[in-house]
Amino acid sequence: MGRGRVEAFSDGVMAVAITLLVLDLHTSAATGEPLLDQLAHEWPAFLAYLLSFFVIGTIWVNHHLLFDAMVRVDRLTLALNLLLLLFVCTIPFSTSTLADFVVEGGTNAQVAVVLYGAVAEGMAVSFVLILRHIIDAGLVSRPIGRDERRRQLVRFGAGLVLYPLATVVGLFAPVVMMVGLTVLSIYYLVGRSALTELAAPSPE
Amino acid sequence: MGRGRVEAFSDGVMAVAITLLVLDLHTSAATGEPLLDQLAHEWPAFLAYLLSFFVIGTIWVNHHLLFDAMVRVDRLTLALNLLLLLFVCTIPFSTSTLADFVVEGGTNAQVAVVLYGAVAEGMAVSFVLILRHIIDAGLVSRPIGRDERRRQLVRFGAGLVLYPLATVVGLFAPVVMMVGLTVLSIYYLVGRSALTELAAPSPE
Amino acid sequence: MGRGRVEAFSDGVMAVAITLLVLDLHTSAATGEPLLDQLAHEWPAFLAYLLSFFVIGTIWVNHHLLFDAMVRVDRLTLALNLLLLLFVCTIPFSTSTLADFVVEGGTNAQVAVVLYGAVAEGMAVSFVLILRHIIDAGLVSRPIGRDERRRQLVRFGAGLVLYPLATVVGLFAPVVMMVGLTVLSIYYLVGRSALTELAAPSPE
Amino acid sequence: MGRGRVEAFSDGVMAVAITLLVLDLHTSAATGEPLLDQLAHEWPAFLAYLLSFFVIGTIWVNHHLLFDAMVRVDRLTLALNLLLLLFVCTIPFSTSTLADFVVEGGTNAQVAVVLYGAVAEGMAVSFVLILRHIIDAGLVSRPIGRDERRRQLVRFGAGLVLYPLATVVGLFAPVVMMVGLTVLSIYYLVGRSALTELAAPSPE
Repeated sequence: MGRGRVEAFSDGVMAVAITLLVLDLHTSAATGEPLLDQLAHEWPAFLAYLLSFFVIGTIWVNHHLLFDAMVRVDRLTLALNLLLLLFVCTIPFSTSTLADFVVEGGTNAQVAVVLYGAVAEGMAVSFVLILRHIIDAGLVSRPIGRDERRRQLVRFGAGLVLYPLATVVGLFAPVVMMVGLTVLSIYYLVGRSALTELAAPSPE
Repeated sequence: MGRGRVEAFSDGVMAVAITLLVLDLHTSAATGEPLLDQLAHEWPAFLAYLLSFFVIGTIWVNHHLLFDAMVRVDRLTLALNLLLLLFVCTIPFSTSTLADFVVEGGTNAQVAVVLYGAVAEGMAVSFVLILRHIIDAGLVSRPIGRDERRRQLVRFGAGLVLYPLATVVGLFAPVVMMVGLTVLSIYYLVGRSALTELAAPSPE
Repeated sequence: MGRGRVEAFSDGVMAVAITLLVLDLHTSAATGEPLLDQLAHEWPAFLAYLLSFFVIGTIWVNHHLLFDAMVRVDRLTLALNLLLLLFVCTIPFSTSTLADFVVEGGTNAQVAVVLYGAVAEGMAVSFVLILRHIIDAGLVSRPIGRDERRRQLVRFGAGLVLYPLATVVGLFAPVVMMVGLTVLSIYYLVGRSALTELAAPSPE
Repeated sequence: MGRGRVEAFSDGVMAVAITLLVLDLHTSAATGEPLLDQLAHEWPAFLAYLLSFFVIGTIWVNHHLLFDAMVRVDRLTLALNLLLLLFVCTIPFSTSTLADFVVEGGTNAQVAVVLYGAVAEGMAVSFVLILRHIIDAGLVSRPIGRDERRRQLVRFGAGLVLYPLATVVGLFAPVVMMVGLTVLSIYYLVGRSALTELAAPSPE
């Protein structure tokens, strides 16, 4: 099975999900509140927009790199990819919940943080499952040795640790979590990716 | 006529439809209800989201396999494909109706179940119509004998029976139907597909 | 300039527009009205959904055929294609207006009919402008003689006459217009297209 | 890295953003106001729709030309492209804010104009950053000399000056800004592009 349509469908889903984030930004002339005040009160929505835009952007870049390393796709890859998209599609929901409850603090803000972290973690887990499957099923363009396999998984396992850690931080300081994850995602996007090595011949 | 743009358009429609499902998940700080309670009360919406995500995911995988077996596309294929997409596009509507009415039970829940089943059945019928047409019009990559044709149609005719059956179950136990169809879809997604045989040479 | 990305962008826009039509179908458990009654009262929305689904479907099929006949794309083609998409994108708006006002009849229904007809006509005009431009600028895969050019334009000019005619009918009987245009679109989709001749060598 | 998926993802995002603009056009039979009056009062929303449709259309055409000139894509291109899409995705928000507040004039209208201008400027800056990066990193299909580089950047730097200028005009006459930017975008779309020269061999 070729990988063209899986990429096209995934691109479509991620493009729609990232664009739907805008539906959570609102202003209204009907309320009578000055627009500048409305925009100022809307800061959690803007921050949440930035955060989720770069979280989805990061998963898109990783998806791109991962599928570039693949020579073909089997049925399990399709199923695991759907699992990944299942979480990506719910990000507009967990984002708007986070934006809505982060200001009031207390238990509600903590629940919103855990919800956001759980969706992000689901995304990270699905991604590692795809990575492990395509290495083990020999779907990548060159053989991956036992050592390199472990290294790749550990490296991406680091991603698995990041979101729970951020969630713990968010239980005490939700805004710090939001700013932190945004900055980390941007840093990662501009930095180098481990997956580029997966596609290129390794020196060993 | 090449099949590239039909696939691209269908991928786009299915990607948008699957992502619009998220618009039926809501929470609101304005109501004053604790977020955890809101999420708990929202369980039918989450279950309906899972159900329809995997229903659309399944039809996407089947669409992918079906079009992979095709060498070219004629005008009737385009029209039947639009019929399929007509039903796919209404799934966000039948899903939100199901989620909204399933809790109260009674006639309303039954009507919602029948609506959901009818849309799913429309999708299944359109799919079989495309399959039959491309076999009969010789649009697949190899000749399909009379026996194999019957076998393929019977096998996919099984799909035609599943949704009405699930609807009957849903008249008495809507939640059982929702969980059952979700599990069956996941099972099907991870399992083997009859359509892979359509593309590969048969042993006869 | 290749035509790949123009097709991809147009497919994306038409896929989103056709899927957004579903946002005009609603039911709500909160109103207390029996679901079956809600669905029955919603018939104009269902009819409008069918109508606009097949209107967009038709324009997509024509777009597909038209671009298949093209060997390259120039800047004016891009601009005219954007004009076409400008009208396609507003169809969810003119559709929901039509569905909302058709029942009450009177001036409001007539205004809704004229709005719908004007958007459809804008689409038809843009389409003929693209067709004329690509013939005159020599962007099609084979030379088109003066006679064939006139024939193609007259044939598609027939499309230009259909929507105003339907609008006039709709001023007196909006539902007849809606059913009529739906049936004509389906008939056209299943029938043969004049554009297939544009791509194939002509006998003259 | 190939440029196929970056183009597909960007096309998807821009297609969704341009189509979401329609969600800001509303009419409602429930208000009892004659439809013709509703449409007349809605003029700022229609004007804002036209404006943003052609603003996004212009950025899509430029994106198309820019990526056509590229032979490959590196990680920084992906990151800068995401920055561009970050602004494109917020256009439906700044558009609906502009449409909502432009009529009442005063400070609110001025804030809405500045918000709109800032988003458009963010888009223009991202675009120039991509252009500069792909020239400096040698990602274009032929060597670009120091003089041509300056010329290309100055020419696109003109775009950077346009939006702030339009914003200043909009502080005093928001409607003039909206009509002016719409007309300029259409003029640009139909006119010639400097980027076509980037792809073609220069005479020097």
